[in-house]
Amino acid sequence: MTRAELAASSGLARSTVASRVDLLLRLGLIAPYGGRSSTGGRPPSLLAVNNGARVVAAIDLGARHARAAIVDLSGAVLAQDREDLDIADGPVPVLRWVTATIDRLMLQTGRPRADLAGIGIGLPGPVEHSTGRAINPPIMPGWDRFDVPQFVRRSFDVPVLIDNDVNIMALGEQDTQFPDEDDLILIKAATGIGAGIIAGGELQRGGQGTAGDIGHIRVSRGSDVLCRCGNVGCLEALAAGPAIARVLGRPGVTEATHVVDLVRSGDLAAIQAVRQAGRDIGDVLAMIVNFINPSVVVIGGALAEAGEHLLAGIREEVYRRSLPLATEHLRIVPSVSGEQSGVLGAAAMAIAHVLSPEAIEQASAELLAAAD
Amino acid sequence: MTRAELAASSGLARSTVASRVDLLLRLGLIAPYGGRSSTGGRPPSLLAVNNGARVVAAIDLGARHARAAIVDLSGAVLAQDREDLDIADGPVPVLRWVTATIDRLMLQTGRPRADLAGIGIGLPGPVEHSTGRAINPPIMPGWDRFDVPQFVRRSFDVPVLIDNDVNIMALGEQDTQFPDEDDLILIKAATGIGAGIIAGGELQRGGQGTAGDIGHIRVSRGSDVLCRCGNVGCLEALAAGPAIARVLGRPGVTEATHVVDLVRSGDLAAIQAVRQAGRDIGDVLAMIVNFINPSVVVIGGALAEAGEHLLAGIREEVYRRSLPLATEHLRIVPSVSGEQSGVLGAAAMAIAHVLSPEAIEQASAELLAAAD
Repeated sequence: MTRAELAASSGLARSTVASRVDLLLRLGLIAPYGGRSSTGGRPPSLLAVNNGARVVAAIDLGARHARAAIVDLSGAVLAQDREDLDIADGPVPVLRWVTATIDRLMLQTGRPRADLAGIGIGLPGPVEHSTGRAINPPIMPGWDRFDVPQFVRRSFDVPVLIDNDVNIMALGEQDTQFPDEDDLILIKAATGIGAGIIAGGELQRGGQGTAGDIGHIRVSRGSDVLCRCGNVGCLEALAAGPAIARVLGRPGVTEATHVVDLVRSGDLAAIQAVRQAGRDIGDVLAMIVNFINPSVVVIGGALAEAGEHLLAGIREEVYRRSLPLATEHLRIVPSVSGEQSGVLGAAAMAIAHVLSPEAIEQASAELLAAAD
Repeated sequence: MTRAELAASSGLARSTVASRVDLLLRLGLIAPYGGRSSTGGRPPSLLAVNNGARVVAAIDLGARHARAAIVDLSGAVLAQDREDLDIADGPVPVLRWVTATIDRLMLQTGRPRADLAGIGIGLPGPVEHSTGRAINPPIMPGWDRFDVPQFVRRSFDVPVLIDNDVNIMALGEQDTQFPDEDDLILIKAATGIGAGIIAGGELQRGGQGTAGDIGHIRVSRGSDVLCRCGNVGCLEALAAGPAIARVLGRPGVTEATHVVDLVRSGDLAAIQAVRQAGRDIGDVLAMIVNFINPSVVVIGGALAEAGEHLLAGIREEVYRRSLPLATEHLRIVPSVSGEQSGVLGAAAMAIAHVLSPEAIEQASAELLAAAD
């Protein structure tokens, strides 16, 4: 579009359009289109969004691994890395790896540091999104209320957005697979079980940011298995990776990936246990489907690698217990992005922030301050 | 504000501001402020929103009663009525009452018909909000897929918005009692049990419009009471008014209002049955609190008139089964608007539509067509 077309279509004054275009050009978010950048004289007339001009860093921290990527504003991955890393090492060593890895990946892309416009990070525990702190995270010793954005901004002076791993997975699945669906639930089944909720097109975090914390909902078959939370019969105590491993009682089988290996080798007891875990997840999911009426439910996390055996158990219970109208057009599907969905969602979260009016206003104020 | 101030604060071109102000003046949505309307010459400089200039009609249809009100754009009730009316009489007689009552209440207010800008109607069953039709409503014979807006628009050529009774109650509670809360759940407990969901500040209807349909979620104490839906142990089969009445087994006690009368008379069996119904509602609400993490839960509907006995049972289970972080700042409160919340929510729904950019654009097109 030209400046004149922007003024006509928006109703904004020509002077407003001119100053905003100038700002977006200086921030590199738009660029002249179909010609070279002018170095004086009249500005070029056609303008376009400049997806390639800026990049964001996306980080997905799990319990025992970390993924990082540099992604441009269209969502294209320019460089990425995966590493085994224990979140229980505490925030300082883990976040040092994060900043060093961003530096290294930026070098790989050949982009200057100034091109980095934002950083999105997912953490494997409850997060206060507004401050970027983990709150009483059960598997993250040393992280409680640690100021993650402040630490990262010592190395990179850009906006740093934090959310929990399940929320960024939900964002990643919506952004890459279901951009037209406004009502999507992502279930992550691994060491714990959690849900990411997109309702009315927006990620829902709830009043205190604990929305999606479904691991301690009681399964209705009335088990008396004791959960670490103190209650009995919680979903996580019956259907998460360690719970299935405990039921199997095999040496060396302690978590979701071990269970998945057994299922893939055709072990009948493991297949049956995973199917029962699917039914227990389906029991809770049936209530969720009745309550929030999603169009799509995506099943992700390490346990989802068990494939059809888990999905069959989930579908069995959901179709048995949910109302016909709520399930008529419901799709229950495995995650396609798989282990990538977290890092893609962290990128989507950072990109949405970089392109938000608030962030552009902030960047504009910083430009002015730097010019003084 | 003056036109010049509007241009400065919005960045819009002066010509854009002038034409939009002219349109809003012609629609009566804004008016000159602090002086008489000019009848020629220079337009008055100060403008204000004109809450009193237009009104909406709000209708709350229950199973056996109907409420109607005329409300101005600030939400102030100008005239209202309540009548016993059986929804099972079918759409034509019920909607004839609706249109006749709107006419009569408009006369009472002394306002011309042209001041009516929209109509909001709540129905006691599942509604397809986009088309305004009831879909397979269990207690509304003859209403299935009946085009409610088309029928009403034969009498009043204004936008007609339809939603179910629980959704409009949630809107009414938020609009009048909790305007600053973005995450609110309204539980209606009466002949059925349903929830209205406000998450992220928006009413959530779900992918198929069935969100909040919690009556057939299984209660975890594992009852084998058969529900009309064919499953066993559904919330509605245990805790709705008719279910409590059945347990009490008294002659003439068949629904929520009879149970409430017994509780008010101090009947111990009725008090205990209502408290158990509260626990069953609390069992399902605990899952909802874990899942969506509301800041406020409002308990409404005829059964809520039983007061503290119902609330105590609900709170008991929610605080026992929900995660501490999710309940730390949670308020569980009785409806203050009570039987008025439905009609106030229907008004809020109609007002929000009348002031929406789409409705203003539509009204503008009709003005132009009328001028031709």
